[in-house]
Amino acid sequence: MKRGQQGERRKFLARGAALVSGAAVLQRARADHLAGEAWERAYGTGFTRYGQPSRFEQAVGRHIAQPYGELAPGSGAALSPIEALDGIITPTSVHFIRSHSGTPDIDPKLHRLYVHGLVERPLRFSLEALSRYPMFTRVYFLECSGNSSRALTPQPAQVPAGGMHGNVSCSEWTGIPLRVLLDEAGVQPQAKWLLAEGADSAHMSRSVPLEKALDDALIALYQNGERLRPENGYPVRLLLPGWEGNMSVKWLRRIKLTEGPTHTKDETSKYTDPLPDGRALQFTFEMGVKSVITRPSSTMKLAETGFHEISGIAWSGGGRIRRVEVSTDGGQTWGEAALTGAERAKALVRFRYPWEWKGGSAVLQSRATDEKGNVQPARREWQARFAPDIRFHNNSIVSWGVESDGSVKNVYA
Amino acid sequence: MKRGQQGERRKFLARGAALVSGAAVLQRARADHLAGEAWERAYGTGFTRYGQPSRFEQAVGRHIAQPYGELAPGSGAALSPIEALDGIITPTSVHFIRSHSGTPDIDPKLHRLYVHGLVERPLRFSLEALSRYPMFTRVYFLECSGNSSRALTPQPAQVPAGGMHGNVSCSEWTGIPLRVLLDEAGVQPQAKWLLAEGADSAHMSRSVPLEKALDDALIALYQNGERLRPENGYPVRLLLPGWEGNMSVKWLRRIKLTEGPTHTKDETSKYTDPLPDGRALQFTFEMGVKSVITRPSSTMKLAETGFHEISGIAWSGGGRIRRVEVSTDGGQTWGEAALTGAERAKALVRFRYPWEWKGGSAVLQSRATDEKGNVQPARREWQARFAPDIRFHNNSIVSWGVESDGSVKNVYA
Repeated sequence: MKRGQQGERRKFLARGAALVSGAAVLQRARADHLAGEAWERAYGTGFTRYGQPSRFEQAVGRHIAQPYGELAPGSGAALSPIEALDGIITPTSVHFIRSHSGTPDIDPKLHRLYVHGLVERPLRFSLEALSRYPMFTRVYFLECSGNSSRALTPQPAQVPAGGMHGNVSCSEWTGIPLRVLLDEAGVQPQAKWLLAEGADSAHMSRSVPLEKALDDALIALYQNGERLRPENGYPVRLLLPGWEGNMSVKWLRRIKLTEGPTHTKDETSKYTDPLPDGRALQFTFEMGVKSVITRPSSTMKLAETGFHEISGIAWSGGGRIRRVEVSTDGGQTWGEAALTGAERAKALVRFRYPWEWKGGSAVLQSRATDEKGNVQPARREWQARFAPDIRFHNNSIVSWGVESDGSVKNVYA
Repeated sequence: MKRGQQGERRKFLARGAALVSGAAVLQRARADHLAGEAWERAYGTGFTRYGQPSRFEQAVGRHIAQPYGELAPGSGAALSPIEALDGIITPTSVHFIRSHSGTPDIDPKLHRLYVHGLVERPLRFSLEALSRYPMFTRVYFLECSGNSSRALTPQPAQVPAGGMHGNVSCSEWTGIPLRVLLDEAGVQPQAKWLLAEGADSAHMSRSVPLEKALDDALIALYQNGERLRPENGYPVRLLLPGWEGNMSVKWLRRIKLTEGPTHTKDETSKYTDPLPDGRALQFTFEMGVKSVITRPSSTMKLAETGFHEISGIAWSGGGRIRRVEVSTDGGQTWGEAALTGAERAKALVRFRYPWEWKGGSAVLQSRATDEKGNVQPARREWQARFAPDIRFHNNSIVSWGVESDGSVKNVYA
């Protein structure tokens, strides 16, 4: 906890009240706390090999968006419930999913990864072979470039924060630096790009500049300590830190070295950004600097006035987060939030900001700045850059309106 | 990847061979990689609200040790399968469990946390009240002081590494600094210790010096981003970074400020260390500096000679890990391993060390040193400090014997 927050808390205490009135002072201390609840008088349950959440937490799960319904139940997205999480790591079980043709059921004994095209030695890797290579571990965020597209509807949707902005997650990834495998294959001088293709039935594929592949690209095998989950690319995926999510091709089956981009279906008709003059941006790889307040947020209700910690996540494809500012008056004034994890590049950062809700209406906003000086844009400023049908790369400031009864709404401010 | 490892890999490549022969050079490139497996020709499965591992990974689970069998199925331990994991974060589903009377099924709406005893204002907190306090997020390891007791049997057990040394795990914890709640309650001057008690039917309880409570102790609510799991203390637990695991009391129901230690059943008959002269050490709080190689490890088999990355985990209750050395000749010579996460205090560190197995026998060891200069002791040196029935705080060097057929055995070297 930063000194500023301690000071803020002390200020509350100095008024002679508890921080939170739910922390009731015991008038008849010892009477009820010695009674004990039912679970203190019954022998508990035995061990499990693979644990699960409490039955009281079953409401916490991904927000599923299936635009084609049951016709194509694996085409669409399932967003992280960021409003129910805290810290930086996203539990793998609720990491967001974006898939074009569902999750393939891949047998790791049969799966192969190929490196071919403009190389000296085309290579084929079994999972067992990959497991012996030098590994590398680091925490990175992953964000779908379509994240926050639901925040572009004409009227603000009244859904939880994760239902709009939850196409972002953060994991500890472990895998082989892609440059190790490319080094072994021997990249030919004319190769400047590669094609990465998945083993799903859509054969989702993207073109990647060689420069990124030789920089921090990973052939990822482990996520948050265990092998990848099926919906996140089991048994092996590409990981391109800081770049739009679908380039980190899941269920990776081949990498083909090429002279130029391949212009696959997934990088022409989709994942491009229309401009006001009728042209479109292609290959917007790096995700912009962004933040969102996760608590309090849309659809929540403040139970009482007094101290509330404002908490949220921030990230940038450009590197480290340098600063997150919070406004509680719709952007008129800003204060600096305390950050956790700001030493890491291309990872989520948790920000926290002390706030006293006095019972009136308020508009809560957060604004992130990264180490390159990129500043998260206001909504109108961002919208003015694109044609009205823009659907990707929305990193504009998010606003939550607190009403005088404590209810929190999604608002366009 | 460190430069030293790159050099080692280049040395292998310079011999004109692939690092791993399983990475076969394609003789008839393009023929088989275009055919496609069955899952590439079938629409995949739909989205899940809460994901699970691949069906091909179901062998990865906790190692359950129930000394009283089905009579008391929740008394004992379930150890992390460290041999199957990589990176630093332990998946919450396989975080180790140590419990005395099973896992209670606690309703968070009914659960209360009390702070009482030598305080100005006895306090009672609901979970809802706790959720509004200032939070703090950090990665810490947790280790049961009985970890590695199975490595003290007369003959070395031939079980996976996690079955002996898996009573250690590492998570990102989020919670309220305990000093915030103590500050609010107002600690009386004569209070020097506190009693922490769980809401399990054993009412597991330990005495904690006030100094630790005011330092880095947390009232933890979230583990790896989501609410605590039932077996790890849901809905609220104490967390004392770097100290023996059972002091981080799970299912925390009360904290009582006291003048001295309470001498509960869990800190007199248990969790003490017998000495050669018949006395016993009580209150060995800080966990020693330690490491273990997780791959290759006991019960594994090396499929072929050539390059193998030696990988493992290291930690110290005393602070940061400064160095991990690896020996492949039973401790005659040592080389320095590359570290990931060494910037963090009281967290697991992943170490990696390149090794070429030439087909003979070998004894693999790792030796950690922390920032205070504490060095992980040799097995015999550690044993000489205690009576033969010592069961706790075994942080001695672990040895894996590689036989000429590639099989890896637990050995006492």
